[in-house]
Amino acid sequence: MAYSVKILSHDKKISATKGDLLADKIIDAGIDLSLYCNKKGMCGKCFVEIVEGALPTLDEREQNLLKQRQLSGNYRLACKYNIQGNLAINIPEISILQKTLILKTGIQLPLIINPPVKKYFCELKKPVLGDPRSSLELIEKHFRKKSLKIDLGLLNELPGLLEKSGYRITVALFKDSEIMAIESGDTTAQNFGLAIDIGTSTLVVELIDLNQGTSVDMETANNSQMAYGLDVVSRITFAFTDPKNLDKLQDSIIQTVSGMIRRLLKRNTVHPLNVYDMVIAGNTAMNHLLLGTPVNSLAVSPFHAVFRTLPELPATQLRFPINKTGKAYVVPNIKSFVGGDISAGLMATDLPIRKGTYLFIDLGTNGEIVLKTEKMFIATSTAAGPAFEGMNISSGMLALPGAIFKAEKKKKLTLQTIGNAAPRGICGTGLIDLVALFIEDGTILPSGAIADKSKAISVTNKIAITQKDIREIQLAVAAIKSGIRMILKIFRLRKEELDGVFIAGAFGNYLNIENAMRLGLLPAIDPEKVAFIGNSALAGARALLLSQEARRKTEAFIRKIQYISLATDPQFQDYFIDALEFGDRSDQI
Amino acid sequence: MAYSVKILSHDKKISATKGDLLADKIIDAGIDLSLYCNKKGMCGKCFVEIVEGALPTLDEREQNLLKQRQLSGNYRLACKYNIQGNLAINIPEISILQKTLILKTGIQLPLIINPPVKKYFCELKKPVLGDPRSSLELIEKHFRKKSLKIDLGLLNELPGLLEKSGYRITVALFKDSEIMAIESGDTTAQNFGLAIDIGTSTLVVELIDLNQGTSVDMETANNSQMAYGLDVVSRITFAFTDPKNLDKLQDSIIQTVSGMIRRLLKRNTVHPLNVYDMVIAGNTAMNHLLLGTPVNSLAVSPFHAVFRTLPELPATQLRFPINKTGKAYVVPNIKSFVGGDISAGLMATDLPIRKGTYLFIDLGTNGEIVLKTEKMFIATSTAAGPAFEGMNISSGMLALPGAIFKAEKKKKLTLQTIGNAAPRGICGTGLIDLVALFIEDGTILPSGAIADKSKAISVTNKIAITQKDIREIQLAVAAIKSGIRMILKIFRLRKEELDGVFIAGAFGNYLNIENAMRLGLLPAIDPEKVAFIGNSALAGARALLLSQEARRKTEAFIRKIQYISLATDPQFQDYFIDALEFGDRSDQI
Repeated sequence: MAYSVKILSHDKKISATKGDLLADKIIDAGIDLSLYCNKKGMCGKCFVEIVEGALPTLDEREQNLLKQRQLSGNYRLACKYNIQGNLAINIPEISILQKTLILKTGIQLPLIINPPVKKYFCELKKPVLGDPRSSLELIEKHFRKKSLKIDLGLLNELPGLLEKSGYRITVALFKDSEIMAIESGDTTAQNFGLAIDIGTSTLVVELIDLNQGTSVDMETANNSQMAYGLDVVSRITFAFTDPKNLDKLQDSIIQTVSGMIRRLLKRNTVHPLNVYDMVIAGNTAMNHLLLGTPVNSLAVSPFHAVFRTLPELPATQLRFPINKTGKAYVVPNIKSFVGGDISAGLMATDLPIRKGTYLFIDLGTNGEIVLKTEKMFIATSTAAGPAFEGMNISSGMLALPGAIFKAEKKKKLTLQTIGNAAPRGICGTGLIDLVALFIEDGTILPSGAIADKSKAISVTNKIAITQKDIREIQLAVAAIKSGIRMILKIFRLRKEELDGVFIAGAFGNYLNIENAMRLGLLPAIDPEKVAFIGNSALAGARALLLSQEARRKTEAFIRKIQYISLATDPQFQDYFIDALEFGDRSDQI
Repeated sequence: MAYSVKILSHDKKISATKGDLLADKIIDAGIDLSLYCNKKGMCGKCFVEIVEGALPTLDEREQNLLKQRQLSGNYRLACKYNIQGNLAINIPEISILQKTLILKTGIQLPLIINPPVKKYFCELKKPVLGDPRSSLELIEKHFRKKSLKIDLGLLNELPGLLEKSGYRITVALFKDSEIMAIESGDTTAQNFGLAIDIGTSTLVVELIDLNQGTSVDMETANNSQMAYGLDVVSRITFAFTDPKNLDKLQDSIIQTVSGMIRRLLKRNTVHPLNVYDMVIAGNTAMNHLLLGTPVNSLAVSPFHAVFRTLPELPATQLRFPINKTGKAYVVPNIKSFVGGDISAGLMATDLPIRKGTYLFIDLGTNGEIVLKTEKMFIATSTAAGPAFEGMNISSGMLALPGAIFKAEKKKKLTLQTIGNAAPRGICGTGLIDLVALFIEDGTILPSGAIADKSKAISVTNKIAITQKDIREIQLAVAAIKSGIRMILKIFRLRKEELDGVFIAGAFGNYLNIENAMRLGLLPAIDPEKVAFIGNSALAGARALLLSQEARRKTEAFIRKIQYISLATDPQFQDYFIDALEFGDRSDQI
């Protein structure tokens, strides 16, 4: 027998068979009904208004949920409603799935919010003499689970909490199988996680509302490990020489990130107990150093890592100031020199599921290049050094207030600084602009030499670009340029065949595409094809914090990526030397 | 195409189809081929000699396994051998599954050894420049797993261990999904677990070889918590009055058991690092106190527990001196007053799968009675007090050297003591014998009064049974007797309908059945139907240590057991008062 279901709120009409589950029919109709608890009737997030049609009796749990949500008596849970006749319904806005765009640029698909950590409010029945069920079983029964994992400390707190709360508690579940927290009363609104980008130079910690999928606030700092070495290689070498140094590096990063977390939570009056999960994106070496894992094998041939994918770790093992049962997920590394920051970035751009041929380039201290075609998924890396982050440059600085981040020359040189402050130095994008402009007007020759053989070019009274600075930029550009050229060459692709180039990294939108092409940092293609995606490592970490599927997908796609080692390819030196000349000449290899 | 497979060693002939897996055909033939690694070709425990038939080329792993096991070139792994023609094979004894009898009395089915913790020797390939796989991936690849859980500490030791061992390591896996230990070289032979019985009065720790399923050695001690209360109720009350007391009780048991473990390991020169798993059977209160879980809810109506089933806990959380990643499995409780010791006992006697009607009685400080019929599975408990363990008896003592454990009277009274030592006191079975003999000869009246109204009956020069002692025994017997009678009454069973009665508890084989029936402690049925199964809690713990299936089955069957509360039944008082008279009169209720 076929019935009709009118969805008045969405102006849709569908047909159904006797006994069909209303939730399934709504999903089939292409409406993103919220199924937070996976159709278990526990979360009360799929209530629909029955305008016409049968109103089956509510059980006790449904009555409670209805009361909690302050809905009238003609609302029913779609995940518990079996269709028995013609229906007309309204789906309220609160029952529609929250989605979020991970990258602000909007180049990727909206992400369905399905975080590993979910919180549920439970009104439990007290045990009675005829059925003296154990406290833990009351919770298991509520979730219709035969058993739930629970930490011993939490188990021992359970009886007191049940008494205190009158059996009205909020349970935080990890992947619907492990109790992470039990709290008195309804605390479902307080559910936070941290997306963390551990860059070689810069650290970012973002506080995320796991219910809404929104960013609450962010904290940025320098990577304190810079005291032990500016780049990855120098830190690996430091760790290598003495096991105590590995501890120093680990302590340094943990303390700095912990301080950032504390400031972030304090500023937003979020209690550390209400932070249950964190996702950490860093390159392979940063990941190892964070975990205190020896990096010796990253330092010598065949340059292999100790781990690629790890299951969620207890955050307490890393001494992070969040809930004691909190989890820390380290975004899986692709290979020794293409780390979790890149996996996160690829996730954030949906690259694994895109049709076409794309380049993904992360411009950082280490330059990672990923080529995705219909047939292949290739990653490589090239050591650009810290010049793009203003390091080893006489007037270089990070993108902080006072940094020259943009330079233009029409009649005269105009400079823009971050925060419009008085110029204090030059950051990466400013350097690229300035060098490109000086090449353009002949002050710098394509070979990199200052034309008049002076030692420096004045930018302001106090700030100049030296010949040595130009050499640093030249080496950094050449590393990226030769990497791109070589990977295209190996797979017999012309740059014109690229459907798009994604530029990740601290440069963000401030990088002037024409100037980058002028230096040869980017292949000279249609600028419309180039998209700046900013800190895609952080964006990916956010996606992995909000979606269990994203974790599964990432772990699956990184297995398909092939790694190519440029450094060990005898041809690479030729490419590199040739790439030292500024510009993107088509006769270059 | 049908082929014949002759199994010469077992004098069997079976038929097979092209491509059939030899291992499957051997299992189908009813031969218990060892499939330790679940047909993954990793353990090398299913080698068979190919006497006639094709000898496919060995891959590197098979060659290594063959070398390790020192077998000749015509042996092949049955789990990797696809049948391509007629075959004649020999299955060597080493390829036949180890089985073990859990109860020494042999009343139960042999247990297939399939412990949660297994150790595998792995010869890994070192990473090479063309394939710089991470260290953890090398292990994952060896086990053909996409990912394996690993503790952070272990991960950080991994690189050093691989170097030191030349990539020849032994990996201990928990449930084939979690790395518990990585050891240098082949240490597969060193794989131990502990079966632990936490009785209210007595503690037993047994060291088990997880490869062979054999008992290595045993250690017995008094439960040190007796300092805080002789019986369960007094300890619960003690814990109840002050949260610090709960800690005291927990510390006491953990320290005592840890000491027992240390002595056991030292005596048998087993390193604590080679102990990976422990199974703990105790009653519900003992389980709670061990874990430091509040027992308040066990003290007041409706007398409910905090937990029933728990997943394996980290043994370090209980500070037990075994491997730092070791597991502790607490045998699931049935209800508040029928604990994991009974679940273990039921497992050990195969009661859940027996056809017929059985009683299972655990005679301890708490008397637990389980009735299993074709239709029902019922448990109840009754407070017998510690008299059967020699407590609260003027000359009472535990079953230690010098304890009178047996008394007979032909012409004169003859006494037997443990270790044939000079009599120091009387233990439970001795008390039952003596009281029964004194009732027989009229010294004690059925009402429990000493016939000549004297205050005591001499047993030896120094040892006597007082009127107060008899009252203690009377109360203990009445508790059990009224419990049995009531449960039979409720389910309308006559004692003659019982197919068997299993008696568990410290009494062991020393209990004289006729004397026990004379007192009314056991129903007066055919003595042939009564089986003493000794410490079945320990036996069950052993089974649960050796078999993953046993854990799953136990967790499943305890859900089916119904609990009946005798204490809250208004009829129970009548039964109890009536049962105070010694003997098993058929006119008693």
